[in-house]
Amino acid sequence: MICVFITGGTFDKTYDEIRGRLSFGETHLPEMLRLGRSRVPVSMQTLMMIDSLEMTDADREAIARRCVDCSESCIVVTHGTDTMVETAAVIARAVRGKTVVLTGAMIPYAFGSSDGLFNLGSALSFVQVLSPGVYIAMNGQHFSWDNVRKNRETGTFEPLR
Amino acid sequence: MICVFITGGTFDKTYDEIRGRLSFGETHLPEMLRLGRSRVPVSMQTLMMIDSLEMTDADREAIARRCVDCSESCIVVTHGTDTMVETAAVIARAVRGKTVVLTGAMIPYAFGSSDGLFNLGSALSFVQVLSPGVYIAMNGQHFSWDNVRKNRETGTFEPLR
Amino acid sequence: MICVFITGGTFDKTYDEIRGRLSFGETHLPEMLRLGRSRVPVSMQTLMMIDSLEMTDADREAIARRCVDCSESCIVVTHGTDTMVETAAVIARAVRGKTVVLTGAMIPYAFGSSDGLFNLGSALSFVQVLSPGVYIAMNGQHFSWDNVRKNRETGTFEPLR
Amino acid sequence: MICVFITGGTFDKTYDEIRGRLSFGETHLPEMLRLGRSRVPVSMQTLMMIDSLEMTDADREAIARRCVDCSESCIVVTHGTDTMVETAAVIARAVRGKTVVLTGAMIPYAFGSSDGLFNLGSALSFVQVLSPGVYIAMNGQHFSWDNVRKNRETGTFEPLR
Repeated sequence: MICVFITGGTFDKTYDEIRGRLSFGETHLPEMLRLGRSRVPVSMQTLMMIDSLEMTDADREAIARRCVDCSESCIVVTHGTDTMVETAAVIARAVRGKTVVLTGAMIPYAFGSSDGLFNLGSALSFVQVLSPGVYIAMNGQHFSWDNVRKNRETGTFEPLR
Repeated sequence: MICVFITGGTFDKTYDEIRGRLSFGETHLPEMLRLGRSRVPVSMQTLMMIDSLEMTDADREAIARRCVDCSESCIVVTHGTDTMVETAAVIARAVRGKTVVLTGAMIPYAFGSSDGLFNLGSALSFVQVLSPGVYIAMNGQHFSWDNVRKNRETGTFEPLR
Repeated sequence: MICVFITGGTFDKTYDEIRGRLSFGETHLPEMLRLGRSRVPVSMQTLMMIDSLEMTDADREAIARRCVDCSESCIVVTHGTDTMVETAAVIARAVRGKTVVLTGAMIPYAFGSSDGLFNLGSALSFVQVLSPGVYIAMNGQHFSWDNVRKNRETGTFEPLR
Repeated sequence: MICVFITGGTFDKTYDEIRGRLSFGETHLPEMLRLGRSRVPVSMQTLMMIDSLEMTDADREAIARRCVDCSESCIVVTHGTDTMVETAAVIARAVRGKTVVLTGAMIPYAFGSSDGLFNLGSALSFVQVLSPGVYIAMNGQHFSWDNVRKNRETGTFEPLR
């Protein structure tokens, strides 16, 4: 059983047609797993539904604690890309002996051209086979939490060294 | 560098609007990798563009030979789901010391509701971390070539035992 | 109130993932009208769900009879493009004093790249303002039933003269 | 020949993945007409690319002047929905003997679930058959410029009386 913690981010942004702006509604994760015909047993929980630029230290601690407390040893966390690296570090300091993979999207899933489905397939696969540790899965690749940064000009993740 | 061999299958079926039926055109793989913002270095080659129900023994041998001959040790093969297991077996008998992952789709990528992007993200991730061997990546899972079958009633892959 | 008669055609073709081929399921019309945020009062009825190449003379007579019998004077008929012109002629011989607009799609609605939503918006608009008669609405244009043919090479409709 | 003036609005909003917010890029109109397999002869011009909440009186006058000055007598204007009614009034005071139809979208075209293609099919059809005047085409309906308002709670257009 893989635990999926949902925290919001671009992944789950939707268009509020009455207000004419992006907002958060229900998570798209169940629909995405159905679309991917996923047969991976998952337990999904929405921890928060926020833009990662607004995520506080307390939020990150709460996510880390959930990773520690859950009974599963394989965990996927959906997260905004802007502060994904920071949250990964907080989780890494708290969790031992589990495989945690953070992923997100550059384009909201609700947009036709989203990378979300690709990233979800990727994160769900990495988490099943990587040895314990905290990783980021983006751009078809996986990065250890202490060797990754988001390049804000290209919008892609890259190793530090 | 990951080698991607394209053989057709539902993945790449498109709708021929003049004839009013499904057909094969150019592969969608490059567009899919762009959509997924993949930064995985890949070398793509279209070996054939056929429905896997029409694939002959000679076709399978040709795919296996390409897997043996290419210089890469990580290989993804896109393939129709109906005979994916047969081709995996032929590759497994020919290839040593390489990680080969076959994947496909239940719904053409050109359809809005395709599982193709999810499966591609999954296959590309598994191939980077699985130990040498021949695998099928479908439904978010990976199966060893000698312990998998397509359940034709549910349209999903499952282990034999 | 506009009457919408559904007869099938490419419009409503869907992909049967178990059998790996195109087929007909439920009509997509209600979903399409919801997507278009249509506020036009409509009464929808599925008369048949077939490829227009398989439509018989009896089928066409049945459609024409329904156009005569319904209480509405504005009618949209969704129809396969291959024999849309033939059915328009049968309706034209039967119906008096009503505006009937036939429309369809070159690409199934379920495909991301369908012309269906555009055509439905077009047909629903034309039917509200054209004077009584039988028309085909395709390619953003309207054609009188006795001055139109489908060009099978370009896949577009054009006037005879 | 139908003249299409593009002014921006939700229609053409796109997602800026580097900045993580909605923005304007190139217009999607040519792609939408291609998707709709439109054969209507059009001349397209982008007059501005802005949110209609930011449109000034001078902008509206500029649009009206272009409607007066162009040689075509059938004109479609794509426009944000929030102030579409105001611009329609300005055009109506300036233009004589031409059919002008304003349309827009509640959801950006780049989103999978947009009403844009439906509305474009609708506007392009109404403009070909309505008698001279200034109209708004939304929700599958057409409204005269002096008998319409946007209901901001439902996000739909409705007659004043």
